[in-house]
Amino acid sequence: MAVYTEVGDEELIAFVGEYDIGEVLSSKGIAEGIENSNFTLTTTSGTYILTLYEKRVKPEDLPFFLGLMEHLATAGIPCPTPIHGRDGKALRRLAGRPAAIVTFLAGMWPRRITPEHCSQLGQGLAKLHLAGAGFGIGRANDLSLPNWRPLLMRSRDHAHEVEAGLADELAQELDRLEAEWPASLPTGVIHGDLFPDNVFFRARKLTGMINFYFACNDMFAYDLAICLNAWCFESDHSFNITKARRMLTAYRKVRDFSTAELAALPLLARGSAMRFLLTRLYDWLHTPAEAMVTCKDPLEYLAKLRFHQGVKSPGAYGLD
Amino acid sequence: MAVYTEVGDEELIAFVGEYDIGEVLSSKGIAEGIENSNFTLTTTSGTYILTLYEKRVKPEDLPFFLGLMEHLATAGIPCPTPIHGRDGKALRRLAGRPAAIVTFLAGMWPRRITPEHCSQLGQGLAKLHLAGAGFGIGRANDLSLPNWRPLLMRSRDHAHEVEAGLADELAQELDRLEAEWPASLPTGVIHGDLFPDNVFFRARKLTGMINFYFACNDMFAYDLAICLNAWCFESDHSFNITKARRMLTAYRKVRDFSTAELAALPLLARGSAMRFLLTRLYDWLHTPAEAMVTCKDPLEYLAKLRFHQGVKSPGAYGLD
Repeated sequence: MAVYTEVGDEELIAFVGEYDIGEVLSSKGIAEGIENSNFTLTTTSGTYILTLYEKRVKPEDLPFFLGLMEHLATAGIPCPTPIHGRDGKALRRLAGRPAAIVTFLAGMWPRRITPEHCSQLGQGLAKLHLAGAGFGIGRANDLSLPNWRPLLMRSRDHAHEVEAGLADELAQELDRLEAEWPASLPTGVIHGDLFPDNVFFRARKLTGMINFYFACNDMFAYDLAICLNAWCFESDHSFNITKARRMLTAYRKVRDFSTAELAALPLLARGSAMRFLLTRLYDWLHTPAEAMVTCKDPLEYLAKLRFHQGVKSPGAYGLD
Repeated sequence: MAVYTEVGDEELIAFVGEYDIGEVLSSKGIAEGIENSNFTLTTTSGTYILTLYEKRVKPEDLPFFLGLMEHLATAGIPCPTPIHGRDGKALRRLAGRPAAIVTFLAGMWPRRITPEHCSQLGQGLAKLHLAGAGFGIGRANDLSLPNWRPLLMRSRDHAHEVEAGLADELAQELDRLEAEWPASLPTGVIHGDLFPDNVFFRARKLTGMINFYFACNDMFAYDLAICLNAWCFESDHSFNITKARRMLTAYRKVRDFSTAELAALPLLARGSAMRFLLTRLYDWLHTPAEAMVTCKDPLEYLAKLRFHQGVKSPGAYGLD
């Protein structure tokens, strides 16, 4: 599902020859992931990940993404580190596409989330937020509040196919979000997509955070709200307050959040639910039936949105 | 396109715990291949391949396939070796499917075939044929002569969509093959599907032969005919006699073939072209458009069949 570009053996050997990472032993396309083409690359010096950037990633954003991973890795965050070629460059071209080799991270993403995972995640996210300080490149969030109404407009006429009255319900929610979206909370580099399948664990410890291709500058608390939605709901869409409390408590031990950030969490959680609902809705309505990808259910995020609409205070997330 | 079954992290850790191969570090689905679900499995002791057998492989054939790989590996053939669990078993169950862990082989399959590759392949195939001797389990070829006419019957009514008059042309060729198919040539274990993407090379040496899931007992010369078709035609369907000569010469240095085998090659090559034409034709006509697989072109094998129909003697393959 995730290899769009085939790389020939001779082409790959020549490409890897530009690095000091030994000789190619093997390269296998990785089935997971839907944005880029990824390969497990084995050389005489070890295992790496080779990524070919496909059309959903803007080439002009690549220096931000690769530079950020390197900045974070240097600061001790367990994330992929871009490998530099002998000419100093980490971003190259292969098979007609921008391409990079990054370090391989041990660990597997958790299918069954426990409160302990959420605690580890909260701690890891806070460390990531602190480590982003001082990174010299900026990137606006192109999937934030100003982008949501245009996104809704593109799905509006068919949204009822997913749920009756959905377009109107979302338009009303957007009115509220646009009116109340916070403007003065602490900002910095956020991951923006830290779902369980982007986080590796080994022996119950967080060992890796991957897929920085939605990273950008935005409110730290918004990143936390994304994680609340991605990690603290059960498969029946019920909210697990124990997981949320563990996540927020662990986060706060590393980077304490302000009263204003805490108070904004319910609204930010609604905004985060809106963001994933709208992109999933768009993909659901616009992906051809014969495409080789599985669309994620937009209604999962409608249930999450409705939950947060009923939240009166951050006490519902286990903190006051 | 080749991971049909997802394996959870806890499930995998418990599964690998049945082996003495260390702790799981990582598991990534492999995109290549269309029959089974394959994963690159990294543990504290090294890298392995984990295969979950999907419905196109009959469970009753698995002892043959796994036993054969072990038999061949023990005899020095560079093929995946099944790893045994602590209870001695190599064939287990995972995620509701038969599953096995095999050794990882270095090397990459060649995209641009050279005469040198063909020479290495001929030598490797002959060694494989010799090494199969003494393997105690047998498996009939279920894609051989008796199966071809029923296969054609299932595509007959739509074959004209692929090429006008195709069903009649193939029916006439089947008359000839059924009348002249050899009955007394040397037989043994053959690979049956040794296409370039099943053969790994490193530094121009053959380092691996994989995918034994069509292996069976049949004529050695038929396996050679399969390789002639898979390795010695250019992409414009022209036959490269230099590649054929190198393959046959290298084969013969390891396992000399009889005059009868050599004389039968043109007919066996027609049969081999028929076998791949018919399975591709069937897949082409019966795979739903939305399926996540790319069908291979049946007409490539029609061109090969017609070439061999024009061959009067094995001299056309570079040998007399």
